[in-house]
Formats: sequence, C-alpha cells, structure tokens
Amino acid sequence: MTAFVEQIRVQFNETDAMGVVHHANYVNYVERARVEFLRARGLSYREITERGFHLAVVEIQFKYRSPAHFDDLLDVEVSLSHLGRASADFAFVIRRAQQLICEGVTKLACVTKDAKLRPIPEDARQLLSS
Amino acid sequence: MTAFVEQIRVQFNETDAMGVVHHANYVNYVERARVEFLRARGLSYREITERGFHLAVVEIQFKYRSPAHFDDLLDVEVSLSHLGRASADFAFVIRRAQQLICEGVTKLACVTKDAKLRPIPEDARQLLSS
Amino acid sequence: MTAFVEQIRVQFNETDAMGVVHHANYVNYVERARVEFLRARGLSYREITERGFHLAVVEIQFKYRSPAHFDDLLDVEVSLSHLGRASADFAFVIRRAQQLICEGVTKLACVTKDAKLRPIPEDARQLLSS
Amino acid sequence: MTAFVEQIRVQFNETDAMGVVHHANYVNYVERARVEFLRARGLSYREITERGFHLAVVEIQFKYRSPAHFDDLLDVEVSLSHLGRASADFAFVIRRAQQLICEGVTKLACVTKDAKLRPIPEDARQLLSS
Repeated sequence: MTAFVEQIRVQFNETDAMGVVHHANYVNYVERARVEFLRARGLSYREITERGFHLAVVEIQFKYRSPAHFDDLLDVEVSLSHLGRASADFAFVIRRAQQLICEGVTKLACVTKDAKLRPIPEDARQLLSS
Repeated sequence: MTAFVEQIRVQFNETDAMGVVHHANYVNYVERARVEFLRARGLSYREITERGFHLAVVEIQFKYRSPAHFDDLLDVEVSLSHLGRASADFAFVIRRAQQLICEGVTKLACVTKDAKLRPIPEDARQLLSS
Repeated sequence: MTAFVEQIRVQFNETDAMGVVHHANYVNYVERARVEFLRARGLSYREITERGFHLAVVEIQFKYRSPAHFDDLLDVEVSLSHLGRASADFAFVIRRAQQLICEGVTKLACVTKDAKLRPIPEDARQLLSS
Repeated sequence: MTAFVEQIRVQFNETDAMGVVHHANYVNYVERARVEFLRARGLSYREITERGFHLAVVEIQFKYRSPAHFDDLLDVEVSLSHLGRASADFAFVIRRAQQLICEGVTKLACVTKDAKLRPIPEDARQLLSS
C-alpha cells in the first residue's frame, strides 16, 4: 500500500520557549495527515462522523528524532500499517527535506457516537485497503 | 459587583519561540477564569450546557501590556461589566503580582444548541448579578 | 493596497464540544495569514526575527459572526489597515464561501528581542506598503 | 519512590467535536504534572533551563482507556520509572475518581541549549531519586 504525504508549514504558535516545535503539536500534525490520507482514499472523515461512526485514537507512540522550527516545511508521511475488524493502525514519518524529525504509530478504533466498539463499515474498509 | 480572581500557572506549551506566552493562550486563560467566576456564583457551565443553552463568545478585545513567561503565576481577574437580556460582557485584567500583563473584554451571547439567540434564563440572571 | 487571502482547512483538534471551531483558534488562523501576507510581500517573518526584530501583537479585536466546523475551508483575508513608525495594523475577514465567519483587527508593534519599541526597518516598511 | 499527583480541571478549549477531551491535550497534562513532580522534589524546571540544560521529550507513549469531558477533575499521577545517566523516564496514569482515563510513559533526555546530550547534573539526579 502506498504512503500518503501531507506537507505542513510550522506555525509560530506551535513553537515553544526552547525555540522548537513543542512536542504535543506533532500529535495534531499526524491527525491532519491521517484525515488527508483518508480523503485521498475517497473517505471524508466528516462524512464518516455524519454516518455515526468515529475513528477514536486509542494509542499513540511518538519518537522525536530532531527538532523542527518556525516556518519549516514538514513532510508528514502516513501509511496504513494494520487493518483489523474494528481497528486501524497508521505508521508515520515526519521529515524536513531528508532529515528525520519524528516517527511513530497511532492506533485507532472504530466506535459509535457513544464510544462502543463496532466493525469498520465494509465500504470504508475497501477504500482504506485500496 | 465584586470581581473574581483565578490564579493560573503558565505552562511550557503555552510559550513560543520569543520566550513568552503566545498571545492566543490568553483567550483560553480568560475563558477558564470566566468558568470559575460562574461556578463561584453558583452556576456550573457544564450544567448550563446540559440544560440546552450556551454562552457563545461573540466578541473579544485583548490589549497586551507586558509579556508573561513560563512558570509565571498569573492572576486573572474577571468581572461582569454588562448584563443584557441575551448577552453578558465580562471585563478582565491579568496581572503577575502588581504588573499589568493583559486586559480587555469578552462579550457573550446566550444561544440554543443550534446557535439561535435566546434570553438568559431567569435563575442564571439572578446568580450572575448576585 | 490589495488584500491577501490564505486558505485554511479547519482541523479536528480546533473544534470544541459545541461542535464548532473554538474561538481561540481564529487568533492563530489570523497570525498564519499575516505571516503569508508578509511572505507574499517579500518579507520572511523568520528572517525578520533573525535580524533581531519582532512584530509583537499588542492588541486584537475579533467579532465572531457565524460558527465554522471541522473540515471547513476558510478564506482568511488580511490587509494592512495602518502603518505607523513602529506599528502596523492588520484588518482581517474570515469567510467560508460567501458566508462571513469572523472579522476584526490585530495591532502589532515592532520591538527588539528584549521587547523595546523600535522603528520598522526601512526595507520592511517599503515592502509592507508596496 | 513515591508517585506525585497533580489535579487538572478539563478546560472547554481542550474538548473536541466528539464532546470529549482531544487526545493531544493529554500530552500537555502530563508535561504539567511532570513539572509539578520536579517542583515537589525541589527542582524548578525554570531554574533548570536558566542553568542551561533542558529535559527534552524524546519519546511518548499514550494509551487512551476512557474519554474525559469538559469540567472533569483529573488526577494525573507521575512517577520516575527509570533514571539513566542522561535520561529519565516518567510513567503516568490519569484517572477521574477511580476510573482509568489514560496511561503511558514519557522519556526525556538531558540536553544543552543547542540540543547536545549531556549528563543530568548531580544535584538534580539526587533530588530526582530522593
């Protein structure tokens, strides 16, 4: 399965007093790239939620390799690393040009509005694994 | 009407690459102090929303007087400056010890879940102006 | 002077429990559009700070006209409304298609690294007013 | 070694359109509890950075067990799980009353201002393991 790359420009409010991107912001970068990955596969996350199911983040692992700075252009590469009956794992690598900035995995579970586990709908599964 | 003061400790993620609190974070500090002001008046904002009405922010004005830094203890003073039929204005002053950091006003409107203007419920009005 | 428009996609982490974009996030949207406005004028804000001066936000005013939602595409239009010796005011209007979402002004002051007021460098002034 | 517990009230801006705390905010909650853990041990993180060393986050792992909501009071328990020559691992558990909300670990490295690895100063090591 091919990976998807979303390019993200570091904003000033995402930096901290060490002069680098604060580590919590990468969590949002990866969510943003995941949403665009889904869109590129034909899955609008907005429509997904309107159909009454959600992809809730149940686990994240981030390894910070090198700091990023204000105005950097980051390439956030996302790929589907595992597709379960009610879960999907996404691996990611964040780079600035060839330099590795951050990498890890986010695990998602398919849930109803009231947070009950449910299988990923068949059409979404098809598109995800296409 | 007496003012309410909420003490807030500056977190590391709220600083930016200039080494100071990023200006957008003050908007959250003031919301936090407003929620505690309401609680001190006997109004839980959580219960308010469960009753189906919201206090939506319709206008804000912030004047930044002096920068704050990581780990500073800030006093966020909030007072009700105007109470309309369906609106409430809150003035605020943020200080670190005697030093003025930021001041301004936030204007809120009472709305239903689908964002329609509605009068502030009578019990809430009584508590607000107590 | 012509206005500059930056298109911004609403991220999931920018929404709140009312189902709309939390009001503090617009402050960051406008900062982002301002940085791109400067870049379009030939001014890199990163280079500006490397030359030892900053454009510090000294006042903001935001009027919230209509809520925005997850995945909305917003047009953030920024224009220079006043250029002083050591200050610059930027007016902004945020729209989703033709719908007005938010509007206001942000006032910036030119300061040294240690927060002392200083005149805007002549080359920056030329580019800003071009 | 005894654990440290920091109580944190969920703010409205930390919720998302699913009506729960957005998962990225827990990263900030844990940083806040870690700073207070250090303070309780006699280590001001502000003073640490003024002495020219930083504790940079190099890896995080978060497992989300149950959602939290606006206005919840969360207990963020932090403990030192490993102390290396230039690194320190902190385990954490977040609970609302007896309910498990989130748990995991954050790994930090001691670095100079220019991000070079260096040993944790002896006095800090003593206080950390006290």
